[in-house]
Amino acid sequence: MEYPKVFEDLVECFKKMPGIGNKSAQRMVYQLLEMKKEDIIIFSNALLNLERINFCAICGHISEADICTICSNEHRNKNVICIVENFQDVFAMEKIKEFNGVYHVLHGCVSLIDGKSIDDLNIKSLFDRLNPNIEEIIIATNPTREGETTALYLAKILENKNLNISRIANGLPIGSSIDYADELTLLRSLEGRMKF
Amino acid sequence: MEYPKVFEDLVECFKKMPGIGNKSAQRMVYQLLEMKKEDIIIFSNALLNLERINFCAICGHISEADICTICSNEHRNKNVICIVENFQDVFAMEKIKEFNGVYHVLHGCVSLIDGKSIDDLNIKSLFDRLNPNIEEIIIATNPTREGETTALYLAKILENKNLNISRIANGLPIGSSIDYADELTLLRSLEGRMKF
Repeated sequence: MEYPKVFEDLVECFKKMPGIGNKSAQRMVYQLLEMKKEDIIIFSNALLNLERINFCAICGHISEADICTICSNEHRNKNVICIVENFQDVFAMEKIKEFNGVYHVLHGCVSLIDGKSIDDLNIKSLFDRLNPNIEEIIIATNPTREGETTALYLAKILENKNLNISRIANGLPIGSSIDYADELTLLRSLEGRMKF
Repeated sequence: MEYPKVFEDLVECFKKMPGIGNKSAQRMVYQLLEMKKEDIIIFSNALLNLERINFCAICGHISEADICTICSNEHRNKNVICIVENFQDVFAMEKIKEFNGVYHVLHGCVSLIDGKSIDDLNIKSLFDRLNPNIEEIIIATNPTREGETTALYLAKILENKNLNISRIANGLPIGSSIDYADELTLLRSLEGRMKF
Protein backbone atom coordinates (compact mmCIF):
# COMPACT_ATOMS: atom_id res chain seq x y z
CA MET A 1 0.00 0.00 0.00
CA GLU A 2 1.30 3.41 -0.92
CA TYR A 3 1.36 6.40 1.36
CA PRO A 4 -0.67 9.40 0.18
CA LYS A 5 1.45 11.63 -2.07
CA VAL A 6 1.26 14.66 0.22
CA PHE A 7 2.52 12.40 3.00
CA GLU A 8 5.47 11.19 0.93
CA ASP A 9 6.29 14.72 -0.22
CA LEU A 10 6.66 15.90 3.36
CA VAL A 11 8.67 12.80 4.31
CA GLU A 12 11.12 13.69 1.52
CA CYS A 13 11.50 17.22 2.91
CA PHE A 14 12.26 15.95 6.42
CA LYS A 15 14.74 13.42 5.02
CA LYS A 16 16.89 16.32 3.82
CA MET A 17 17.47 17.32 7.44
CA PRO A 18 20.72 16.13 9.09
CA GLY A 19 20.48 12.74 10.80
CA ILE A 20 16.92 12.07 9.62
CA GLY A 21 16.25 8.82 7.78
CA ASN A 22 13.05 7.46 6.27
CA LYS A 23 11.65 6.04 9.50
CA SER A 24 12.29 9.18 11.56
CA ALA A 25 10.80 11.36 8.82
CA GLN A 26 7.68 9.19 8.73
CA ARG A 27 7.32 9.43 12.51
CA MET A 28 7.49 13.21 12.22
CA VAL A 29 4.73 13.30 9.62
CA TYR A 30 2.62 10.90 11.71
CA GLN A 31 2.94 13.32 14.58
CA LEU A 32 2.12 16.32 12.39
CA LEU A 33 -1.06 14.55 11.26
CA GLU A 34 -2.17 14.50 14.87
CA MET A 35 -1.26 18.14 15.51
CA LYS A 36 -3.61 21.10 15.36
CA LYS A 37 -3.96 22.81 12.00
CA GLU A 38 -2.82 26.13 13.49
CA ASP A 39 0.47 24.62 14.67
CA ILE A 40 1.16 23.34 11.18
CA ILE A 41 0.49 26.78 9.71
CA ILE A 42 2.91 28.26 12.28
CA PHE A 43 5.55 25.70 11.26
CA SER A 44 5.00 26.43 7.57
CA ASN A 45 5.31 30.18 8.11
CA ALA A 46 8.38 29.78 10.32
CA LEU A 47 10.11 28.13 7.39
CA LEU A 48 9.21 30.97 5.04
CA ASN A 49 10.37 33.53 7.61
CA LEU A 50 13.91 32.13 7.40
CA GLU A 51 14.22 34.30 4.32
CA ARG A 52 14.57 37.29 6.66
CA ILE A 53 17.95 36.03 7.84
CA ASN A 54 20.87 37.55 5.95
CA PHE A 55 24.60 37.38 6.36
CA CYS A 56 26.31 40.34 8.02
CA ALA A 57 28.07 42.47 5.37
CA ILE A 58 31.14 42.78 7.59
CA CYS A 59 31.72 39.42 9.26
CA GLY A 60 29.39 36.99 7.44
CA HIS A 61 27.49 35.97 10.59
CA ILE A 62 23.73 35.46 10.35
CA SER A 63 21.69 38.54 11.09
CA GLU A 64 18.23 39.98 10.56
CA ALA A 65 19.81 43.39 9.80
CA ASP A 66 22.53 44.18 7.24
CA ILE A 67 25.12 44.40 10.01
CA CYS A 68 24.97 41.82 12.81
CA THR A 69 24.48 42.71 16.48
CA ILE A 70 28.15 41.94 17.25
CA CYS A 71 29.66 44.13 14.51
CA SER A 72 27.25 46.95 15.36
CA ASN A 73 27.99 46.76 19.09
CA GLU A 74 30.09 49.78 20.13
CA HIS A 75 31.50 48.00 23.15
CA ARG A 76 33.17 45.21 21.19
CA ASN A 77 36.83 45.52 20.26
CA LYS A 78 36.88 45.66 16.45
CA ASN A 79 40.65 45.15 16.42
CA VAL A 80 40.54 41.56 17.68
CA ILE A 81 39.08 39.26 15.03
CA CYS A 82 38.28 35.63 15.73
CA ILE A 83 38.00 33.58 12.52
CA VAL A 84 35.53 30.68 12.68
CA GLU A 85 34.27 28.17 10.11
CA ASN A 86 30.52 28.56 10.60
CA PHE A 87 28.01 30.84 12.26
CA GLN A 88 27.22 28.02 14.74
CA ASP A 89 30.73 28.54 16.08
CA VAL A 90 29.96 32.19 16.82
CA PHE A 91 27.09 31.14 19.09
CA ALA A 92 29.37 28.59 20.78
CA MET A 93 32.08 31.22 21.38
CA GLU A 94 29.56 33.75 22.65
CA LYS A 95 28.30 31.28 25.25
CA ILE A 96 31.59 31.51 27.17
CA LYS A 97 30.92 35.26 27.64
CA GLU A 98 34.64 36.01 27.70
CA PHE A 99 35.56 37.12 24.19
CA ASN A 100 34.97 40.81 23.53
CA GLY A 101 36.35 41.02 20.01
CA VAL A 102 34.52 40.46 16.75
CA TYR A 103 34.26 37.49 14.41
CA HIS A 104 34.83 36.55 10.83
CA VAL A 105 32.79 33.63 9.50
CA LEU A 106 34.44 31.68 6.67
CA HIS A 107 31.29 29.72 5.74
CA GLY A 108 33.15 26.43 5.53
CA CYS A 109 36.68 25.14 5.43
CA VAL A 110 39.21 23.92 2.89
CA SER A 111 38.09 20.39 2.00
CA LEU A 112 39.36 18.11 -0.73
CA ILE A 113 36.31 15.86 -0.39
CA ASP A 114 33.84 18.72 -0.88
CA GLY A 115 36.12 20.33 -3.50
CA LYS A 116 36.37 23.54 -1.47
CA SER A 117 39.51 25.61 -1.76
CA ILE A 118 40.53 28.68 0.24
CA ASP A 119 39.08 30.87 -2.54
CA ASP A 120 35.61 29.44 -1.98
CA LEU A 121 35.58 30.76 1.58
CA ASN A 122 34.56 34.21 2.83
CA ILE A 123 38.16 35.52 2.60
CA LYS A 124 37.94 38.64 0.46
CA SER A 125 35.90 40.53 3.05
CA LEU A 126 38.47 39.51 5.68
CA PHE A 127 41.21 41.33 3.77
CA ASP A 128 38.95 44.38 3.54
CA ARG A 129 38.88 44.44 7.36
CA LEU A 130 42.64 44.31 7.85
CA ASN A 131 44.23 47.60 8.90
CA PRO A 132 47.25 48.67 10.96
CA ASN A 133 45.13 48.92 14.12
CA ILE A 134 44.34 45.18 14.23
CA GLU A 135 45.72 43.84 17.51
CA GLU A 136 45.16 40.12 17.02
CA ILE A 137 43.75 37.55 14.64
CA ILE A 138 42.60 34.41 16.46
CA ILE A 139 42.18 31.41 14.16
CA ALA A 140 39.39 29.29 15.68
CA THR A 141 38.73 26.73 12.95
CA ASN A 142 37.90 23.19 14.15
CA PRO A 143 40.74 20.87 15.25
CA THR A 144 39.90 18.50 12.36
CA ARG A 145 42.00 17.73 9.30
CA GLU A 146 39.99 20.27 7.26
CA GLY A 147 40.02 22.89 10.00
CA GLU A 148 43.78 22.53 10.53
CA THR A 149 44.41 22.81 6.78
CA THR A 150 42.29 25.94 6.67
CA ALA A 151 44.19 27.37 9.64
CA LEU A 152 47.52 26.73 7.88
CA TYR A 153 46.28 28.40 4.69
CA LEU A 154 45.04 31.40 6.66
CA ALA A 155 48.32 31.74 8.55
CA LYS A 156 50.17 31.59 5.24
CA ILE A 157 48.16 34.24 3.39
CA LEU A 158 48.21 36.54 6.43
CA GLU A 159 51.91 36.14 7.27
CA ASN A 160 53.15 39.15 5.29
CA LYS A 161 50.58 41.49 6.77
CA ASN A 162 52.58 42.04 9.97
CA LEU A 163 49.75 40.74 12.15
CA ASN A 164 49.65 39.08 15.54
CA ILE A 165 48.10 35.70 14.63
CA SER A 166 47.13 33.06 17.21
CA ARG A 167 45.43 29.67 17.14
CA ILE A 168 43.08 28.37 19.86
CA ALA A 169 44.64 25.64 22.02
CA ASN A 170 44.28 21.88 21.65
CA GLY A 171 44.35 19.65 24.70
CA LEU A 172 42.30 17.49 26.98
CA PRO A 173 38.69 18.59 27.36
CA ILE A 174 37.55 19.29 30.94
CA GLY A 175 36.13 16.18 32.62
CA SER A 176 37.93 13.77 30.31
CA SER A 177 40.50 11.18 31.39
CA ILE A 178 44.10 10.93 30.18
CA ASP A 179 43.65 7.18 29.95
CA TYR A 180 41.06 7.54 27.20
CA ALA A 181 42.64 10.47 25.31
CA ASP A 182 43.97 9.84 21.80
CA GLU A 183 47.72 10.24 21.27
CA LEU A 184 47.51 13.42 19.21
CA THR A 185 45.34 15.21 21.76
CA LEU A 186 47.68 14.18 24.54
CA LEU A 187 50.72 15.29 22.51
CA ARG A 188 49.15 18.71 21.86
CA SER A 189 48.20 18.92 25.52
CA LEU A 190 51.82 18.33 26.50
CA GLU A 191 53.22 20.71 23.90
CA GLY A 192 50.83 23.42 24.99
CA ARG A 193 51.58 23.09 28.71
CA MET A 194 51.50 26.30 30.69
CA LYS A 195 53.24 27.45 33.88
CA PHE A 196 51.29 26.33 36.96
CA MET B 1 24.21 36.21 22.27
CA GLU B 2 20.68 35.51 21.21
CA TYR B 3 19.67 33.71 18.06
CA PRO B 4 17.54 35.72 15.65
CA LYS B 5 13.84 35.37 16.53
CA VAL B 6 12.88 33.73 13.22
CA PHE B 7 15.63 31.20 13.90
CA GLU B 8 14.32 30.42 17.40
CA ASP B 9 10.73 30.20 16.14
CA LEU B 10 11.66 27.50 13.67
CA VAL B 11 13.77 25.65 16.25
CA GLU B 12 10.68 25.54 18.49
CA CYS B 13 8.64 24.00 15.66
CA PHE B 14 11.21 21.28 15.03
CA LYS B 15 11.45 20.54 18.76
CA LYS B 16 7.82 19.41 18.69
CA MET B 17 8.83 16.55 16.42
CA PRO B 18 9.41 13.14 18.07
CA GLY B 19 12.99 12.54 19.22
CA ILE B 20 14.16 16.05 18.35
CA GLY B 21 15.86 18.07 21.09
CA ASN B 22 17.23 21.59 21.05
CA LYS B 23 20.58 20.69 19.48
CA SER B 24 19.10 18.57 16.68
CA ALA B 25 16.51 21.25 15.94
CA GLN B 26 19.26 23.88 15.70
CA ARG B 27 21.26 21.68 13.33
CA MET B 28 18.19 21.38 11.11
CA VAL B 29 17.73 25.14 10.97
CA TYR B 30 21.45 25.62 10.28
CA GLN B 31 21.06 23.28 7.33
CA LEU B 32 17.92 25.04 6.12
CA LEU B 33 19.80 28.35 6.16
CA GLU B 34 22.20 26.84 3.67
CA MET B 35 19.49 25.38 1.45
CA LYS B 36 18.04 26.97 -1.67
CA LYS B 37 15.05 29.24 -1.17
CA GLU B 38 12.93 27.09 -3.51
CA ASP B 39 13.50 24.00 -1.39
CA ILE B 40 12.32 25.85 1.69
CA ILE B 41 9.17 26.97 -0.11
CA ILE B 42 8.55 23.34 -1.14
CA PHE B 43 8.96 22.27 2.49
CA SER B 44 6.62 25.00 3.69
CA ASN B 45 3.96 24.04 1.15
CA ALA B 46 4.33 20.32 1.88
CA LEU B 47 3.35 21.09 5.47
CA LEU B 48 0.26 23.02 4.39
CA ASN B 49 -0.71 20.22 1.99
CA LEU B 50 -1.05 17.83 4.93
CA GLU B 51 -4.47 19.39 5.34
CA ARG B 52 -5.60 17.32 2.37
CA ILE B 53 -5.26 14.14 4.39
CA ASN B 54 -8.50 13.05 6.04
CA PHE B 55 -9.53 10.00 7.99
CA CYS B 56 -11.52 7.35 6.14
CA ALA B 57 -15.19 7.58 7.16
CA ILE B 58 -15.40 3.79 7.46
CA CYS B 59 -12.16 2.59 9.05
CA GLY B 60 -10.42 5.75 10.29
CA HIS B 61 -7.27 5.19 8.21
CA ILE B 62 -5.62 8.23 6.59
CA SER B 63 -6.82 8.98 3.10
CA GLU B 64 -6.92 11.77 0.56
CA ALA B 65 -10.50 10.77 -0.35
CA ASP B 66 -13.48 10.33 2.02
CA ILE B 67 -13.12 6.56 1.83
CA CYS B 68 -9.61 5.07 1.90
CA THR B 69 -8.15 2.95 -0.91
CA ILE B 70 -8.52 -0.21 1.18
CA CYS B 71 -12.19 0.24 2.09
CA SER B 72 -12.99 1.23 -1.49
CA ASN B 73 -11.15 -1.76 -2.97
CA GLU B 74 -13.68 -4.29 -4.30
CA HIS B 75 -11.23 -7.17 -4.01
CA ARG B 76 -10.78 -6.87 -0.26
CA ASN B 77 -12.86 -9.03 2.06
CA LYS B 78 -14.99 -6.57 4.03
CA ASN B 79 -16.02 -9.32 6.44
CA VAL B 80 -12.59 -9.73 7.99
CA ILE B 81 -11.72 -6.69 10.09
CA CYS B 82 -8.27 -6.20 11.61
CA ILE B 83 -8.33 -3.71 14.49
CA VAL B 84 -5.12 -1.69 14.91
CA GLU B 85 -4.10 1.18 17.20
CA ASN B 86 -2.76 3.63 14.64
CA PHE B 87 -2.67 4.20 10.91
CA GLN B 88 1.08 3.43 10.93
CA ASP B 89 0.10 -0.13 11.84
CA VAL B 90 -2.01 -0.38 8.67
CA PHE B 91 1.07 0.38 6.55
CA ALA B 92 3.07 -2.20 8.53
CA MET B 93 0.38 -4.87 8.01
CA GLU B 94 0.06 -4.04 4.32
CA LYS B 95 3.79 -4.58 3.85
CA ILE B 96 3.42 -8.32 4.48
CA LYS B 97 1.07 -8.48 1.45
CA GLU B 98 -0.88 -11.38 2.98
CA PHE B 99 -3.91 -9.87 4.63
CA ASN B 100 -6.84 -9.33 2.30
CA GLY B 101 -9.39 -8.07 4.80
CA VAL B 102 -10.01 -4.50 5.91
CA TYR B 103 -8.90 -2.50 8.93
CA HIS B 104 -10.31 -0.49 11.75
CA VAL B 105 -8.02 2.18 13.21
CA LEU B 106 -8.66 2.97 16.89
CA HIS B 107 -6.48 6.15 16.92
CA GLY B 108 -4.77 5.18 20.15
CA CYS B 109 -5.19 2.72 22.98
CA VAL B 110 -6.54 2.63 26.50
CA SER B 111 -3.90 4.36 28.61
CA LEU B 112 -4.08 5.43 32.23
CA ILE B 113 -1.06 7.70 31.79
CA ASP B 114 -2.57 9.60 28.87
CA GLY B 115 -6.02 9.46 30.49
CA LYS B 116 -7.50 7.65 27.50
CA SER B 117 -10.39 5.29 28.08
CA ILE B 118 -12.05 2.95 25.59
CA ASP B 119 -14.67 5.65 24.88
CA ASP B 120 -11.97 8.01 23.59
CA LEU B 121 -11.09 5.57 20.81
CA ASN B 122 -12.67 5.18 17.39
CA ILE B 123 -15.11 2.52 18.63
CA LYS B 124 -18.55 3.78 17.65
CA SER B 125 -17.84 3.44 13.94
CA LEU B 126 -16.62 -0.12 14.61
CA PHE B 127 -20.04 -1.07 15.97
CA ASP B 128 -21.64 0.48 12.88
CA ARG B 129 -19.63 -1.98 10.78
CA LEU B 130 -20.67 -5.11 12.63
CA ASN B 131 -23.22 -7.29 10.85
CA PRO B 132 -24.08 -11.02 10.72
CA ASN B 133 -21.80 -11.53 7.71
CA ILE B 134 -18.60 -10.67 9.61
CA GLU B 135 -16.32 -13.71 9.48
CA GLU B 136 -13.57 -12.62 11.81
CA ILE B 137 -12.37 -9.75 13.96
CA ILE B 138 -8.58 -9.80 14.38
CA ILE B 139 -7.35 -7.69 17.29
CA ALA B 140 -3.89 -6.41 16.33
CA THR B 141 -3.14 -3.89 19.06
CA ASN B 142 0.48 -3.74 20.23
CA PRO B 143 1.78 -6.37 22.69
CA THR B 144 2.36 -3.64 25.29
CA ARG B 145 0.55 -3.12 28.57
CA GLU B 146 -1.72 -0.51 26.94
CA GLY B 147 -2.28 -2.57 23.81
CA GLU B 148 -3.13 -5.69 25.81
CA THR B 149 -5.55 -3.74 27.98
CA THR B 150 -7.21 -2.34 24.87
CA ALA B 151 -7.43 -5.86 23.41
CA LEU B 152 -9.11 -7.14 26.57
CA TYR B 153 -11.61 -4.27 26.54
CA LEU B 154 -12.38 -4.89 22.87
CA ALA B 155 -12.84 -8.62 23.44
CA LYS B 156 -15.18 -7.84 26.33
CA ILE B 157 -17.43 -5.36 24.54
CA LEU B 158 -17.60 -7.60 21.47
CA GLU B 159 -18.21 -10.89 23.29
CA ASN B 160 -22.02 -10.79 23.11
CA LYS B 161 -22.07 -10.06 19.39
CA ASN B 162 -21.51 -13.72 18.42
CA LEU B 163 -18.31 -12.91 16.54
CA ASN B 164 -15.22 -14.91 15.75
CA ILE B 165 -12.56 -12.83 17.54
CA SER B 166 -8.83 -13.55 17.33
CA ARG B 167 -5.65 -11.93 18.60
CA ILE B 168 -2.35 -11.83 16.70
CA ALA B 169 0.27 -14.18 18.15
CA ASN B 170 3.08 -13.34 20.55
CA GLY B 171 6.34 -15.21 20.41
CA LEU B 172 9.96 -15.01 19.44
CA PRO B 173 10.69 -12.65 16.55
CA ILE B 174 12.45 -14.21 13.55
CA GLY B 175 16.23 -13.99 13.86
CA SER B 176 16.18 -13.62 17.64
CA SER B 177 17.72 -16.02 20.12
CA ILE B 178 15.93 -17.89 22.92
CA ASP B 179 18.83 -17.06 25.19
CA TYR B 180 18.08 -13.34 25.00
CA ALA B 181 14.28 -13.54 25.01
CA ASP B 182 12.41 -12.16 28.03
CA GLU B 183 10.41 -14.64 30.11
CA LEU B 184 6.98 -13.40 29.06
CA THR B 185 7.79 -13.61 25.35
CA LEU B 186 9.15 -17.11 25.81
CA LEU B 187 6.09 -18.14 27.85
CA ARG B 188 3.76 -16.82 25.15
CA SER B 189 5.87 -18.54 22.53
CA LEU B 190 5.47 -21.85 24.37
CA GLU B 191 1.75 -21.38 25.00
CA GLY B 192 1.18 -20.54 21.38
CA ARG B 193 3.09 -23.55 20.02
CA MET B 194 1.71 -25.07 16.85
CA LYS B 195 1.83 -28.58 15.36
CA PHE B 196 5.01 -29.10 13.37
